[in-house]
Amino acid sequence: MFDIIYVLEMTGVIAFAISGMLIARSKNMDPVGVFTIGFVTALGGGTLRDLMMDNHPLYWIKHQEQPILILCMAVVFSYWHRVERIRESRILLPDALGLGVFTILGAQLALDLDHSWFVASLLGVMTGTFGGALRDTFCNEVPLIFRKDQIYASISFAGCWLYFVCQWLLESESLAMTIGLLFIFITRLLAVRFDIRLQRDRRTVQ
Amino acid sequence: MFDIIYVLEMTGVIAFAISGMLIARSKNMDPVGVFTIGFVTALGGGTLRDLMMDNHPLYWIKHQEQPILILCMAVVFSYWHRVERIRESRILLPDALGLGVFTILGAQLALDLDHSWFVASLLGVMTGTFGGALRDTFCNEVPLIFRKDQIYASISFAGCWLYFVCQWLLESESLAMTIGLLFIFITRLLAVRFDIRLQRDRRTVQ
Amino acid sequence: MFDIIYVLEMTGVIAFAISGMLIARSKNMDPVGVFTIGFVTALGGGTLRDLMMDNHPLYWIKHQEQPILILCMAVVFSYWHRVERIRESRILLPDALGLGVFTILGAQLALDLDHSWFVASLLGVMTGTFGGALRDTFCNEVPLIFRKDQIYASISFAGCWLYFVCQWLLESESLAMTIGLLFIFITRLLAVRFDIRLQRDRRTVQ
Repeated sequence: MFDIIYVLEMTGVIAFAISGMLIARSKNMDPVGVFTIGFVTALGGGTLRDLMMDNHPLYWIKHQEQPILILCMAVVFSYWHRVERIRESRILLPDALGLGVFTILGAQLALDLDHSWFVASLLGVMTGTFGGALRDTFCNEVPLIFRKDQIYASISFAGCWLYFVCQWLLESESLAMTIGLLFIFITRLLAVRFDIRLQRDRRTVQ
Repeated sequence: MFDIIYVLEMTGVIAFAISGMLIARSKNMDPVGVFTIGFVTALGGGTLRDLMMDNHPLYWIKHQEQPILILCMAVVFSYWHRVERIRESRILLPDALGLGVFTILGAQLALDLDHSWFVASLLGVMTGTFGGALRDTFCNEVPLIFRKDQIYASISFAGCWLYFVCQWLLESESLAMTIGLLFIFITRLLAVRFDIRLQRDRRTVQ
Repeated sequence: MFDIIYVLEMTGVIAFAISGMLIARSKNMDPVGVFTIGFVTALGGGTLRDLMMDNHPLYWIKHQEQPILILCMAVVFSYWHRVERIRESRILLPDALGLGVFTILGAQLALDLDHSWFVASLLGVMTGTFGGALRDTFCNEVPLIFRKDQIYASISFAGCWLYFVCQWLLESESLAMTIGLLFIFITRLLAVRFDIRLQRDRRTVQ
């Protein structure tokens, strides 16, 4: 059980770090800025989760190889010039992956600590969305995130409940986690187009 | 003793959730946004209080009926069309009630955990004001809150000390809590007019 | 050992409180605003550090003489009219001193709790920079801080590692702390001019 969770954590950290660093580069930040945004995006959600559940030492303090990895990635992203040519829309893929991974990991840890499904789903959503929200706030995209967050949060919330139900029906933790994660990842990617339609609706309302 | 505190907590949560959801609706947010703002306004202050005093599990994790209640309220506020017609100035009443309730509850918990009057008053002010500050920040009213906060915080601070003195003189916890709470609630409502005068003064200074 | 740490903490708190209150006064804030900004600047970094390392009770709750001192300072800064004439650029000195003191104290506490050098340096940087970041955010200087933070953070990070190496070579905790602290303080003051050059470079890039 430890192994699959560790692999997922690593995937989520790398995916979110990439999403943060791509935005930081597109804003012409210096290496310290790139590292800070990468760190906050990748580890912000897990830190909030651990503080809320009083789960000490914090995730990134226990696994210090992860901030070290982010430091190495920040060096590569800062000095590798090809990164500049990556279009900003490319962050969608790592962002959706990070959202899926961290939501399910947050919910899974909450279940492990004997919280109810409802509380676990709230903690899952917070773990999944907080890193990205910090990233967007620090990169001065405040108004944008808030709209994005709403679709974000709904998909993340639905994924949690799909994971709970699958876990209850299938009695296989890892299969249920995979289903929940893939649901969030795929729905989020599909929602990008849906997103545009949603904004058109809202314009009519306002 | 448990009962009066629980009733107060419920009142504060409902009052602050209403204040948050009214603003969220007036900004045309979707149901997820309405829930998020309601949750953050109603439970933000208590979460900060619990984290600062290392009081785990967090309030909303222990009493999960409260986030569930906020979820139900968010559904009502999102789909009940009369809400749209409520003027924004109406949030003053639930906001002042929430401020009073949470300030006194924060200070009372701090006294229970053997903190001094001074530390308890600071924790009371933080518990009372943090939810509203998050609400205003998320609804993009950053400059406004900061001015509001100043009158807010003074009333909340004075209410704490009134509660401490009453508790010391009267030796009745519930009576002292009620006096402190009513003082904050009424002074806050009166201060709305005072507020306007204060801003006029400040304009002269600047 | 306790004494030198307590003296340093007091110095850092006073220095950061001054830096916050000078900005708050220059924005014509009322006494509550001056106290709030002073409190948040002086004690924000230490609070984040203690929450992250699960080090309870929080620093300012254990040493309540420090918020009381900040309260007294806020009264002096609010009603002493000479303060108004202090130019804003004067905050550089207390700000650089606070950065040095809190960085080294954060890193030192992390080493005491058996964290690795890398984790301790990250915690040192967070302790040193978080108070100033909160101050600048609350005073509505959001875009400015982020640029400042980058030089800030690099100096603070380098100072941590200098402290670790000195402590390892010299086997004298207090000497190593003093060297790290002075390095950060002096480099930060020198960097103000370097800062201007850095921004000129960046303008070319953008």
